[in-house]
Amino acid sequence: MNIKSKTIPELETLCGEIREEILRVVSKNGGHLSSTLGATELIVAMHKVFDSKKDPFIFDVSHQSYAHKLLTDRWDNFDTLRQFNGVCGYTKPSESEDDYFVAGHSSTSISLGVGAAKAIALKGEQDSRIPIAMIGDGSMTAGMVYEALNELGDRKYPMIIILNDNEMSIAKPIGALSRILSSAMAGSFYQKFKKHTENFVDNFGEGAHYIAKRMEEGLKLITPGIMFEEMGIDYIGPIDGHNIKSLVETLELAKDLGKPVIVHCQTLKGKGYEIAEGKEEKWHGVSPFDLKSGASSKKSSDKSATQIFTEALMHLAKNDEKIVGATAAMPSGTGMNELMETYPDRFWDVAIAEQHAVTSMSALAKEGFKPFCTIYSTFLQRGYDQVIHDTCLMDLPVVFALDRAGIVGEDGETHQGVFDISFLRAIPNMTLFAPRDEKSFHQAMAFASEYQHPCSLRYPRGSFKETDLIESTPFELAKSQLLYSTDSDILFIGYGNGVGRAYESAKFLEEDVSILDLRFVKPLDENMLRNLATKHKTWFVFSDYSKAGGVVSAILDFLAKEKILDIELTSFEYEDEFITHGNTKLVEESLGLLPSQLALKVKELL
Amino acid sequence: MNIKSKTIPELETLCGEIREEILRVVSKNGGHLSSTLGATELIVAMHKVFDSKKDPFIFDVSHQSYAHKLLTDRWDNFDTLRQFNGVCGYTKPSESEDDYFVAGHSSTSISLGVGAAKAIALKGEQDSRIPIAMIGDGSMTAGMVYEALNELGDRKYPMIIILNDNEMSIAKPIGALSRILSSAMAGSFYQKFKKHTENFVDNFGEGAHYIAKRMEEGLKLITPGIMFEEMGIDYIGPIDGHNIKSLVETLELAKDLGKPVIVHCQTLKGKGYEIAEGKEEKWHGVSPFDLKSGASSKKSSDKSATQIFTEALMHLAKNDEKIVGATAAMPSGTGMNELMETYPDRFWDVAIAEQHAVTSMSALAKEGFKPFCTIYSTFLQRGYDQVIHDTCLMDLPVVFALDRAGIVGEDGETHQGVFDISFLRAIPNMTLFAPRDEKSFHQAMAFASEYQHPCSLRYPRGSFKETDLIESTPFELAKSQLLYSTDSDILFIGYGNGVGRAYESAKFLEEDVSILDLRFVKPLDENMLRNLATKHKTWFVFSDYSKAGGVVSAILDFLAKEKILDIELTSFEYEDEFITHGNTKLVEESLGLLPSQLALKVKELL
Repeated sequence: MNIKSKTIPELETLCGEIREEILRVVSKNGGHLSSTLGATELIVAMHKVFDSKKDPFIFDVSHQSYAHKLLTDRWDNFDTLRQFNGVCGYTKPSESEDDYFVAGHSSTSISLGVGAAKAIALKGEQDSRIPIAMIGDGSMTAGMVYEALNELGDRKYPMIIILNDNEMSIAKPIGALSRILSSAMAGSFYQKFKKHTENFVDNFGEGAHYIAKRMEEGLKLITPGIMFEEMGIDYIGPIDGHNIKSLVETLELAKDLGKPVIVHCQTLKGKGYEIAEGKEEKWHGVSPFDLKSGASSKKSSDKSATQIFTEALMHLAKNDEKIVGATAAMPSGTGMNELMETYPDRFWDVAIAEQHAVTSMSALAKEGFKPFCTIYSTFLQRGYDQVIHDTCLMDLPVVFALDRAGIVGEDGETHQGVFDISFLRAIPNMTLFAPRDEKSFHQAMAFASEYQHPCSLRYPRGSFKETDLIESTPFELAKSQLLYSTDSDILFIGYGNGVGRAYESAKFLEEDVSILDLRFVKPLDENMLRNLATKHKTWFVFSDYSKAGGVVSAILDFLAKEKILDIELTSFEYEDEFITHGNTKLVEESLGLLPSQLALKVKELL
Repeated sequence: MNIKSKTIPELETLCGEIREEILRVVSKNGGHLSSTLGATELIVAMHKVFDSKKDPFIFDVSHQSYAHKLLTDRWDNFDTLRQFNGVCGYTKPSESEDDYFVAGHSSTSISLGVGAAKAIALKGEQDSRIPIAMIGDGSMTAGMVYEALNELGDRKYPMIIILNDNEMSIAKPIGALSRILSSAMAGSFYQKFKKHTENFVDNFGEGAHYIAKRMEEGLKLITPGIMFEEMGIDYIGPIDGHNIKSLVETLELAKDLGKPVIVHCQTLKGKGYEIAEGKEEKWHGVSPFDLKSGASSKKSSDKSATQIFTEALMHLAKNDEKIVGATAAMPSGTGMNELMETYPDRFWDVAIAEQHAVTSMSALAKEGFKPFCTIYSTFLQRGYDQVIHDTCLMDLPVVFALDRAGIVGEDGETHQGVFDISFLRAIPNMTLFAPRDEKSFHQAMAFASEYQHPCSLRYPRGSFKETDLIESTPFELAKSQLLYSTDSDILFIGYGNGVGRAYESAKFLEEDVSILDLRFVKPLDENMLRNLATKHKTWFVFSDYSKAGGVVSAILDFLAKEKILDIELTSFEYEDEFITHGNTKLVEESLGLLPSQLALKVKELL
């Protein structure tokens, strides 16, 4: 699509067509809706002024990049958005050369821009290329943004940061003043005020020079951009992020400044779909819905693990006022919103700030509270050092409740919860366990609430696998539950959601096998494993985890330590590769992890 | 020691005594010198105004906390500073109840303060307790500081942040003005200026109200604290951090404000020891030295791994201009300063900002450069998500050069490099290897510089173990080097510095054993291991790493996958516990990891 030659009215028409296509596909497939509708004009203006074939277009989190995808050769297969083998819901270079980087976690864009700017400087391409990072105001809370701004402001690489301010959290709405303010910096108002204050300062006597300098900086305060200016980065704005004409003009201006500049754009989440406009939380990520009514077209399904978590924590929090908790900007995703509403003094949304979440909760634990740090598995990666340094070295009873453990479905590669066991198991003082169903989840939470050391439990996105297993018994430290004991040589060991998979796989076999719910991957139930090793010699491990360093490694470490050499152990976990997006069942099928497929593998191996 | 009853002159005398004791012990034991000398008055004033038995005293990084240790019952055994079983060089609650938290990694203090403040609020103890965080300006660059300030400014918990500004990076020295400025906020200057600008604004017409509000905020700019004020945190300063009287007065004031406040103190690193004053880099962390001359009393020793790294990278960088690199505020520690001096355009100190370091280097790799991200093993924990999300998902050729892998000696628990293999091995596309001596280090670096995927090499603090092993051959992907092949049933497998330990241990045995330098822990040299498994049935693994999820786990995963069941494998790696500080050899001895001890264990096991 040749955007370059289009007029402003034609671009406005194009925005309408883009919104229509996004609404059509997202209402059918589900996806991120409100942020992408809000960013449509920004993206069209970016493509009008810059060239994604050469300028690095960097979308923070990139769930707002649908318009960019439509503009870069993905209109025809946009129907497959987020589906298995279809268009990815995030930017992905292997999908298109117009996607500069993978992004799915927030707040990386400015660092990427700084790196790209360094490369451009080294190559001497400053006259023909410039990085453009688009970042939402929500992403601005994560620390790495400031780390990047700090270097950028110091080194002054040419770079454009489009601040997509759709919650108006940076500056209060200021109506008619916005245009005055955005143009005031270089205009007569600035000059007039500057002169005026200089005169004032001259009369003040001692310290005049210092104050004059400060005064000049003070002028910058007439825009909301002081924070960026203070860091050494030019600020333009706020401007209307839905006015293509002013966006194009501003970006043209910013392009030629030859230094880092933040263009502050105010946008409306959900813009163009009245039902969603302004209602950010509900329409951020959606499942398929009816376009006319906005009603979800999803069938009522089984209770999700997140819902069980909320119920369990509500129950515990009611009876123990020492229970507190935090979420890092995922109140509904982690099921913490009910807690925050009911106990606003004890449960906090700390914004996208996983490092701070972990460390501040550790201090609460030191003070005698029982913090639940509730976070997606994939996002705890951002607070890893803090888990080691602030929680575990202090041996404090923080509970890490890891939602979205294992394959997460349509969000895909960037969101899979497949590293937590490896990185947590290595930490001394840490205890790791997992529930397998609703009842065991409540029991696991009860255990966690009483446990006096760091611990972490993991549970899947969506619902647990259906199991009609025997009833779960209360959780005790390092105790597994032997669900079925048979004379078979075969032992299935399940962990968390893997228990259901083990059970379902067993149903495809003629032979009755023994099934162990491992429950604790650290510490292991050594007595149980030792006993089972005398009886069963062929073990299979099932878990929503990868093979490298996870459940199977823990068992192998134990067997080696005990010099138990006669066990043939097979891992039915993920291979050492990034796992793509798509319906979880389809993804599992592609990995050969459906119970019917696993049962076949068992038969082949015997 | 009862500080409360002391007069200001007595406190000044006390500061002199503290400095004398610190200089006496650090010149003998080595340690962190200049920052602790600079913070002496701050700490004495903290103890005068607050009570570390009830108020959380939170020292960021805490290498500046020696004066606090002396004031809280550790004067008598301060002689043992940083020695095995002696006083720890960082705060440590198990050593004293006056130490609120473990700290050794930077930039956690404000998060801890926020957590403590939340706890204090929940307990209703606001009238009797307040958290005090002391943080250096260097630590302010790390993102988690901003994550914490962001919540603090929003929720306004009473808390005092003492900004120990010893490099004057936040505000330029402003001499006589400082007192004016620090008192101006509430004084007549403020009022006069406010009135004046309001009049000006009234005449301006449209938008007056908005501008007036901004103007008022603009006043805050007459101090360097605008950034904090903008975040909602009161600012006092800058004040002279060596003037006890004004420190005590200011802290008394801050104590009663009932809201978050930053007290900006300017201090001189090395204060009181003329040779060190102002020379921050050289005197930050020191080995034993002569107090009179300042000359290091350390004997010349073997070449350190860091020095070899520098030589190797200098050689590579000279011949390949695509090689670039970053350090996160450890230019001398990681040996990057020579690179930064020689190639200032290609090697960057990005400040304490590990997340930004990893991600910005990933963008350089995308642009065709070959980045060396040089970082201590323990600090890469702070960029973990970025390694997964920005480097490995993109499969980019960033080299992570991990200094200080394994036991680090006197710095101790917070700095041990014992998690890297576990957390990196789990990541798809990552390759892990390690050199064993000087020659193999050069070869490993040559391999790294050519390799087109993410990779990481690790090397110890100090020098490699002495080995007179056969010569190292060039590094090839997934190729080990079999150093000694014998008919013995025993195979020693070494990784990195563990090769030397394996070799030295073998010398204590009567029997000749085979020794393999594993070189790559990911991917493994599967052919070699398969062949060796047919010949040797008793394997021992040596590495500077822990047992959980590391080298031995990788080998066990392989053996299980291959259904090789007849190998008895013993790991001579670290146990699953935090490892204390002290001379590395003494620590290793306490863990039973000296070659003589290991040889005994081998004999017992046979």
